[in-house]
Amino acid sequence: MCGIFAYLNHLTPKTRKEVLDFLVNGLKRLEYRGYDSAGIAVDSADGRNVSIIKKNGKVQALQDEIYSREADLAFEATADCHVGIAHTRWATHGTPSERNAHPQRSDEDNTFCLVHNGIITNYKDIKLFLTKKGHTFESETDTEIIAKLMMHIYKKNPNDTFQEIVEQCIQQLEGAFALCIKSKLFPGECVATRRGSPLLVAIKTKTRLATDHIPILYGKDLVTSLDPAEAKAKTDFRPHGGTAAETLTAASLMPRTPSTAEFQPMEEDKQVEYFFASDASAVIEHTNRVIFLEDDDVAAVKDGTLSIHRIRRNMDDPHAREITTIKMEIQQIMKGNYSFFMQKEIFEQPESVVNTMRGRVNFDTQSIVLGGIKEYIPEIKRCRRLMLIACGTSYHSAVATRQLLEELTELPVMVELASDFLDRNTPVFRDDVCFFISQSGETADTLMALRYCKNRGALIVGVTNTVGSSICRESHCGVHINAGPEIGVASTKAYTSQFISLVMFGMVMSEDRISLQQRRRDIMKGLQQLEEQIKEVLKLDSKVQELAKDLYQNKSLLIMGRGYNFATCMEGALKVKELTYMHSEGIMAGELKHGPLALVDETMPVIMIVMRDPVYTKCMNALQQVTARQGQPILICEKGDKDTQEFASRVLEVPHTVDCLQGILTVIPLQLLSYHIAVLKGCNVDCPRNLAKSVTVE
Amino acid sequence: MCGIFAYLNHLTPKTRKEVLDFLVNGLKRLEYRGYDSAGIAVDSADGRNVSIIKKNGKVQALQDEIYSREADLAFEATADCHVGIAHTRWATHGTPSERNAHPQRSDEDNTFCLVHNGIITNYKDIKLFLTKKGHTFESETDTEIIAKLMMHIYKKNPNDTFQEIVEQCIQQLEGAFALCIKSKLFPGECVATRRGSPLLVAIKTKTRLATDHIPILYGKDLVTSLDPAEAKAKTDFRPHGGTAAETLTAASLMPRTPSTAEFQPMEEDKQVEYFFASDASAVIEHTNRVIFLEDDDVAAVKDGTLSIHRIRRNMDDPHAREITTIKMEIQQIMKGNYSFFMQKEIFEQPESVVNTMRGRVNFDTQSIVLGGIKEYIPEIKRCRRLMLIACGTSYHSAVATRQLLEELTELPVMVELASDFLDRNTPVFRDDVCFFISQSGETADTLMALRYCKNRGALIVGVTNTVGSSICRESHCGVHINAGPEIGVASTKAYTSQFISLVMFGMVMSEDRISLQQRRRDIMKGLQQLEEQIKEVLKLDSKVQELAKDLYQNKSLLIMGRGYNFATCMEGALKVKELTYMHSEGIMAGELKHGPLALVDETMPVIMIVMRDPVYTKCMNALQQVTARQGQPILICEKGDKDTQEFASRVLEVPHTVDCLQGILTVIPLQLLSYHIAVLKGCNVDCPRNLAKSVTVE
Repeated sequence: MCGIFAYLNHLTPKTRKEVLDFLVNGLKRLEYRGYDSAGIAVDSADGRNVSIIKKNGKVQALQDEIYSREADLAFEATADCHVGIAHTRWATHGTPSERNAHPQRSDEDNTFCLVHNGIITNYKDIKLFLTKKGHTFESETDTEIIAKLMMHIYKKNPNDTFQEIVEQCIQQLEGAFALCIKSKLFPGECVATRRGSPLLVAIKTKTRLATDHIPILYGKDLVTSLDPAEAKAKTDFRPHGGTAAETLTAASLMPRTPSTAEFQPMEEDKQVEYFFASDASAVIEHTNRVIFLEDDDVAAVKDGTLSIHRIRRNMDDPHAREITTIKMEIQQIMKGNYSFFMQKEIFEQPESVVNTMRGRVNFDTQSIVLGGIKEYIPEIKRCRRLMLIACGTSYHSAVATRQLLEELTELPVMVELASDFLDRNTPVFRDDVCFFISQSGETADTLMALRYCKNRGALIVGVTNTVGSSICRESHCGVHINAGPEIGVASTKAYTSQFISLVMFGMVMSEDRISLQQRRRDIMKGLQQLEEQIKEVLKLDSKVQELAKDLYQNKSLLIMGRGYNFATCMEGALKVKELTYMHSEGIMAGELKHGPLALVDETMPVIMIVMRDPVYTKCMNALQQVTARQGQPILICEKGDKDTQEFASRVLEVPHTVDCLQGILTVIPLQLLSYHIAVLKGCNVDCPRNLAKSVTVE
Repeated sequence: MCGIFAYLNHLTPKTRKEVLDFLVNGLKRLEYRGYDSAGIAVDSADGRNVSIIKKNGKVQALQDEIYSREADLAFEATADCHVGIAHTRWATHGTPSERNAHPQRSDEDNTFCLVHNGIITNYKDIKLFLTKKGHTFESETDTEIIAKLMMHIYKKNPNDTFQEIVEQCIQQLEGAFALCIKSKLFPGECVATRRGSPLLVAIKTKTRLATDHIPILYGKDLVTSLDPAEAKAKTDFRPHGGTAAETLTAASLMPRTPSTAEFQPMEEDKQVEYFFASDASAVIEHTNRVIFLEDDDVAAVKDGTLSIHRIRRNMDDPHAREITTIKMEIQQIMKGNYSFFMQKEIFEQPESVVNTMRGRVNFDTQSIVLGGIKEYIPEIKRCRRLMLIACGTSYHSAVATRQLLEELTELPVMVELASDFLDRNTPVFRDDVCFFISQSGETADTLMALRYCKNRGALIVGVTNTVGSSICRESHCGVHINAGPEIGVASTKAYTSQFISLVMFGMVMSEDRISLQQRRRDIMKGLQQLEEQIKEVLKLDSKVQELAKDLYQNKSLLIMGRGYNFATCMEGALKVKELTYMHSEGIMAGELKHGPLALVDETMPVIMIVMRDPVYTKCMNALQQVTARQGQPILICEKGDKDTQEFASRVLEVPHTVDCLQGILTVIPLQLLSYHIAVLKGCNVDCPRNLAKSVTVE
């Protein structure tokens, strides 16, 4: 998850300082999407070349850099037509550094420069192909291959248009992307495209627009729903400088002379500015007219005219893209339709889990490759034991996957709280493999534990959401969970992505085991269904909200479960604690009789997780123990499991998946519950009292 | 901890059925002290021999056995003078079986029969000595050597009195004992003695007693505070049949003719019954006149006259033992001065920890021997890892000692909840050593986990309070914690004894390590001081009670700590949960910032444990985090640690000991707190709702 932004002014004179400020401010709005490094590409001061300015760290660092080069960048010069692209990065491939920052380029002449949000999963193949063709690479990113590939295509077909080059290029790409491209060869033009990652185009004109739809141009076979006569009429108004080629884009966007301004000079009608951005927060201060691009749309602006292209048309494809008028506040846009980042992040989970698997899980070949630890797998297989060390929610992801890792690796797996691990001076040996799990990659206790283990010669594996973080840097190898930035202090999507990352590790470890093939196929199937199943679970939202209304005035809450779902209980209880300040506790159902059952009576709210997994019977025992003591448990159980549901008045149903992944689906209702209780109690969901997002002190 | 009981009737005709009923009913009262097996010794029906009847299991089984042998035992025959001894066993040496049940005997003729409560720590040496002298042993008990040693002494000095034989015998014994002895050679006589284990003599006469003190007879050097004339006068009233020897016992007990009954016939004055018992609950239905014997007292009854002997007199020794009049109910007696068994058990801890160490820790030679696992130590030292598996409180004892075991063994130590361990199908290997900790030795989950590990070839070590329990029987080796029966459902003394047992194991494992010698000496010193330090902690009782008054109306309680004291937090919270139904939770202080800190405000009761140990600074950070959020923590800290106490308004001070034993001292205030809160809330302390003592279902 990165932020991309581009600004194109056509016949709208701006000083270069204004252009640079637009770019930098756009990035600042997008900084919540990533803040590892930032960069821009603009025309050079003499207009003959492209200048790329990149800086490690937050956007502010980039801005400082730009302002320090005021003269060099000719701040006061004016550009009538100009294309600038900009990027703020959340690292996935390659550490945060200027070299890996975007824009990435095709060659030293900056022929093609581009900014990218997403992950190209077949970048290694393309890199190999291009290397053989003589291209050399300067970064560790997956992005660089796109620019180089465009160069390759251009050299093969030097007469192709910019848009055609991009179209050919993206047909070679696998994975997810949103791209904005600037080329020295095509001054004043910008092409943007997306697949999987978000991208929108915003339009600013002084006059009203001629249309609120942009027709889509399919391959060579142009079909437009607009009446040709009308289209013809409109071409009259196309901005000045349009070539014959543009007449093809019959209904391409152009400012319409409003009836009340019919006699305004032509020049003004031709003035147009375009903004490309990952989301509307970056453009809303300029205009509220936006088009949300769909997967595989290629949007091209040439001579001030926007056209939208697709390779081919399917039966149900629409004819046009609507121009939407946005009426939201910036903060609101950043949060989408959500009131809080945490809520947004909960609802992002269908995508974030896919992002975690992207380029790693191949459902066709039923294989999983974790590039970051691939070369260490033989060493890991020879180890004496696995240790998973973390704090808070990350610790729970380790608890959640421990059983599966034990099963798939047949190694002893120890799960440790980093602080306790350090307090105990735990013995660590050279043949241990130690995993350190941290969303931020900067959690102080986890980092200290990492160093402790490294000093003792153990193999260090980092599992973080933040490429280039301290834990990344100090690990021997690792897995990036690629969940995208998490703003809410209470972790949600990072948890499910950590969970999946550890599951993928287990899968990699068991690849060669004949007896586990059926199990692996079941898990593969489960992983494949996750996106849809999470969407289904999220539909419980309003039901969970009702439940929250019943619960939010209670002082205590017990969440019980066992086996694969015990971690869900602990994580759910932690969420409730963090957000609602209600005393909640995750209870191992197997321990009920050894004490906690004394707490149960008709007044104590109890949530129980009872899935049709190997501990179902034991969970049912616990459930009956609770109901026998007049407990009124709220059940989280499998969809359609009527037998179990008879034991409770209130039930949340989640779809069935393979036992070891069920915890991903059962935790989501609890995330929602904690969220709704917090809202009902008037708590600050994104910044719970006393807590900080990344705990960088011991 | 066993129950011993003896009944002597002198010139008080009783049917044999009455005698047998007295013995059996006495045992039933004492059954809370142990219920592994029971046995009695009475004169045979023809009066020429001694019959021993023993039965495995509860006293009821013994009673059934006796009643099934009604004819054989001549129920209807009458005995004017008779001595019967009885025993209900809490096994420590040797499994519960008829062979190991008491009475134990000197030879096949039952020349000396005795019942014993306690542990003879040098029994192996004595056994070796006696074996060389030609004695053969029929049981695995430590007790049998006492009977055989008496036989040996008798054979050497056949003219010694019964009391002299016992005196010589006990000079050879080390450890703890209360003994009642019956001998075929001395019909109508009974000798009883104690050291470390409790014993009392109760007296029943039809007339009032001549004195309320029994003078003590010291060796040959008789000193009596009674006026010789008075003593002489009293001998006039000595019961019929007294020999010259009795005139020595100048002030020995005999019934005094009450003034109002001066002219009653002599015969009635001579009638007397004696009861010997571990505590008054077994005698109170017969008489309320008792003498509590002191260590090394030897009480002898001959011809109906009781005398108390000691080998030598020290400066401050009293001249006499008082005859106390008991005015308590039976239930009350069983509980001593305590309202509930749990309270009693909390206050028994100074003794129970000593019992756990008895015969194992030699403070002079600084060595520890655990007989039950001694031969397995080399194998354990070669293992791949130690696993400690348990439920509830027993699990906490494993958490409490994990760090020390890691330090002293330098092995990976995993601590597992039995239920979760089973749910996870945890991989276990042939080179693993698995400890199973359970007070009752019957905890279903723990037992299932044991079998699971045993099937996989691991070495199984049991740590229980119940010899002969399923876990004992199915273990390869083990440690008995010897805490004595625990009646209160909430475990207290078993926890501290489990804790010490695991510490002793660590000590045994590290015996040969030069670098650990100083550490071992520190721990030795700590173990030696424990008894006194626990007594000191128990003095906090009234202060804790005050605190309970402040807390008992709260809904929630957080108990925070880390390092060696984290287990104390979990165990303290469990006690509060179990007894008070208040939602309490043990919080790892290192995890505060990762969530639980959100719970803290000025209303949430927080207890923090801050000791001057290696995590002191980190604990102080946590303390300051809590106070910064207006938390009002109650501190458990070291005595005299003024610097730390400044941060809290309420403080409980416990004495300093070595870091790894501190948890024994810090848990006791929390045991007391849970007790007092439960009392204030009117909860049933000994039987908390929804819970049972021994969880024998999964």
